Amino acid sequence: MRPYELIKAKRDGKRLEPGDIRAFIEAYTSGDVPDYQMSALCMAVFFRGLDAVELGAWTRAMLESGEVLDLGDVPGVKVDKHSTGGVGDKVSLSLAPLAAACGVPVPMISGRGLGHTGGTLDKLESIPGFKVDLPVSDYRRLVREVGCCLIGQTASVAPADKKLYALRDVTATVDCIPLICSSIMSKKLAEGIDALVLDVKVGSGAFMKTVEDARLLARTMIGVGAEMGRKVTALLTDMNQPLGRAVGNALEVVEAVEMLRGRAPADYTEVTLALTAEMLVLGGRAGSLAEARQKLERAVRDGSAVRKLQEIVEAQGGDPGAIDDYSRLPQARSQVDVLATEEGFVTGIQTEAVGLAAVALGAGRQRVDSRIDPAVGFTLLRKVGEPVKKGDPLVRIHYNDPAPVEDVRARLLAAYSCGPRAPEPQPLILERLG
Amino acid sequence: MRPYELIKAKRDGKRLEPGDIRAFIEAYTSGDVPDYQMSALCMAVFFRGLDAVELGAWTRAMLESGEVLDLGDVPGVKVDKHSTGGVGDKVSLSLAPLAAACGVPVPMISGRGLGHTGGTLDKLESIPGFKVDLPVSDYRRLVREVGCCLIGQTASVAPADKKLYALRDVTATVDCIPLICSSIMSKKLAEGIDALVLDVKVGSGAFMKTVEDARLLARTMIGVGAEMGRKVTALLTDMNQPLGRAVGNALEVVEAVEMLRGRAPADYTEVTLALTAEMLVLGGRAGSLAEARQKLERAVRDGSAVRKLQEIVEAQGGDPGAIDDYSRLPQARSQVDVLATEEGFVTGIQTEAVGLAAVALGAGRQRVDSRIDPAVGFTLLRKVGEPVKKGDPLVRIHYNDPAPVEDVRARLLAAYSCGPRAPEPQPLILERLG
Repeated sequence: MRPYELIKAKRDGKRLEPGDIRAFIEAYTSGDVPDYQMSALCMAVFFRGLDAVELGAWTRAMLESGEVLDLGDVPGVKVDKHSTGGVGDKVSLSLAPLAAACGVPVPMISGRGLGHTGGTLDKLESIPGFKVDLPVSDYRRLVREVGCCLIGQTASVAPADKKLYALRDVTATVDCIPLICSSIMSKKLAEGIDALVLDVKVGSGAFMKTVEDARLLARTMIGVGAEMGRKVTALLTDMNQPLGRAVGNALEVVEAVEMLRGRAPADYTEVTLALTAEMLVLGGRAGSLAEARQKLERAVRDGSAVRKLQEIVEAQGGDPGAIDDYSRLPQARSQVDVLATEEGFVTGIQTEAVGLAAVALGAGRQRVDSRIDPAVGFTLLRKVGEPVKKGDPLVRIHYNDPAPVEDVRARLLAAYSCGPRAPEPQPLILERLG
Repeated sequence: MRPYELIKAKRDGKRLEPGDIRAFIEAYTSGDVPDYQMSALCMAVFFRGLDAVELGAWTRAMLESGEVLDLGDVPGVKVDKHSTGGVGDKVSLSLAPLAAACGVPVPMISGRGLGHTGGTLDKLESIPGFKVDLPVSDYRRLVREVGCCLIGQTASVAPADKKLYALRDVTATVDCIPLICSSIMSKKLAEGIDALVLDVKVGSGAFMKTVEDARLLARTMIGVGAEMGRKVTALLTDMNQPLGRAVGNALEVVEAVEMLRGRAPADYTEVTLALTAEMLVLGGRAGSLAEARQKLERAVRDGSAVRKLQEIVEAQGGDPGAIDDYSRLPQARSQVDVLATEEGFVTGIQTEAVGLAAVALGAGRQRVDSRIDPAVGFTLLRKVGEPVKKGDPLVRIHYNDPAPVEDVRARLLAAYSCGPRAPEPQPLILERLG
């Protein structure tokens, strides 16, 4: 099939043959199909969608455009988690050692922060010495020996997705569920996983603003997983305010370690435990979610989870002492508090605005080549539903460079809304699909 | 507005600001907006459309991307006709001299044949010596002095459209009514016209297969015309069989001259008179269509129409004697007839197939750089509704190169369908809008 005919068929709502999809994506990757034909096809997919079979073929073609890691020599069911991204989302930092401590091998390839959301790699790199660019041989060995390895995407994984993502980014075809799903899944499968837990964030700080969209994304991911012979379980979790209280790389590492010690905010703890429990069930380490929760709580109580994190840090060249002594993590030189100007209750926090304020402070990237400061960030001293008095601190800003602070303070103040009554508490876990 | 935002806004069904459309098209023409963003936008327009204001802005930006001819020094209301293209559509060849003979100045910029449809320029060039690449100064002078000039599009007219058309052609965004309308209208307005008659062909040999699509195209063109301050009248005309009996360049010239002498097939004569009558009304040379028809019939009867054609041919360097003596036109060396294999009535002619058979014979182009043979083509000896006996000639093939003849014969035979009963006669003019 000629590229033109494939574009036209999708445009007209026809079902594409798997072989034709594969040929188109291969030709795009090699440069034989130009960007302008791929962008037209992506826009047609935006309007017409891809069914399960088409999506499976699309994902497989992207997956097989590059190296696929074989973890066949690692015993056990390898399970990873993917989050659609949020603010203060440090779940991976505690989930990975927890799952590994309970016997589930976790091969985890993560990304960097971009735009208003943070990235696991940036957070890990705030631990002195921690290396995320290990060679594949080390990655394979650490998954086998330590039970977990956390690295960045290598250039050899899914090059078709890299090229396509850059194109989608400038042609308004990023927020298209089948294209999102094939992008995530092709990268995740290239890690060598057997099963995946998906954390679909929903709300003002998430990519998916409504439960309906989040559910569609989850169902589509589960469908692609089935098409590729991989079990996917999805939780829809709340992102109408940042998760936990820490926003910023080293600050989030501290909160994650605290979680492993049973001392973190309840919302972050709950989301982490719920997602990790799914991993234990998928990985065959628990017969039920209830049994999984018991194992996880035990791993927190008996210290094995925090020890697993130290083991991972050490194995990846980091300073394990920083897990016990937080002063060995990057520290911001100064702090200033944003004070409430109203009395009542926090009724909402514009989460994306908090994320963008963190970028403005230097904790995140506006562009892929921006540099970040691992020490800076926020501690949210008030969250939704909590009472405030005029002059109470809402947020503590941890900073090094004073230049952006006034702007950041104004953004944070504007992001908070207060009212006379506390809003109804909202569920953290909105739905489970799988 | 950034290109990304404009694409996204259209994708999401928002109305684009005229200034933003203009900036996008200007940036595309200059190369600042790459093809892959324009193709994504065109695909979004395919799904979301353009309203009258957006379309006016789009058309104006394309029009003003190049030279706009000023015919202000030519007295009278300048009127042109545009056809969406068919097989055997030699209407322009007789319509232009007829309208000019009745006092309507006709500045006509035509195209070449491509795919299954023929092109006015190719037909004109079969007249020995006829030049279609006159300089703009001659074009302006001939419209003023002769009342008509028929030329090809110059490189300086609507360069944005040329670039965009080439892109649409490879990204499955050609058959999109707003993009078609802006393409036609930007080129037509660049000729310096005051009003336009549109011939929207409908049927198996036309771009528009249904009356609904044809009507939508006509209404959209009328809307763009109104937006640009130009009156547009549209006729929907039948293209379920070739128009007239001649298909092929020199053969069509002969049939067109015969029409001006009152001796052409009724269908072709009727469509030409109906369209030319609209031109006379738009051009203020007749108060009603009935009056216009009388004037046109008189121009045929008194020979002024055919004399006007000779005047045009002479003014454009052609041999006016060829209009009286058809043997001075290119003649094919051989003829062979396709004979009926069934008895009954012709129930249908697959018109696109006839056009493609003409291309195979060498009368038309499959690619823009193909060479054509002006002498070759077909005479349709039977048309829909006419009785046939086994062995009766259906089509006469006029050829020089015998190589493709057998293939062409088989194609033509397959294009004809016969049955025991003559089908109900169908109207030639399906609708009038304006």
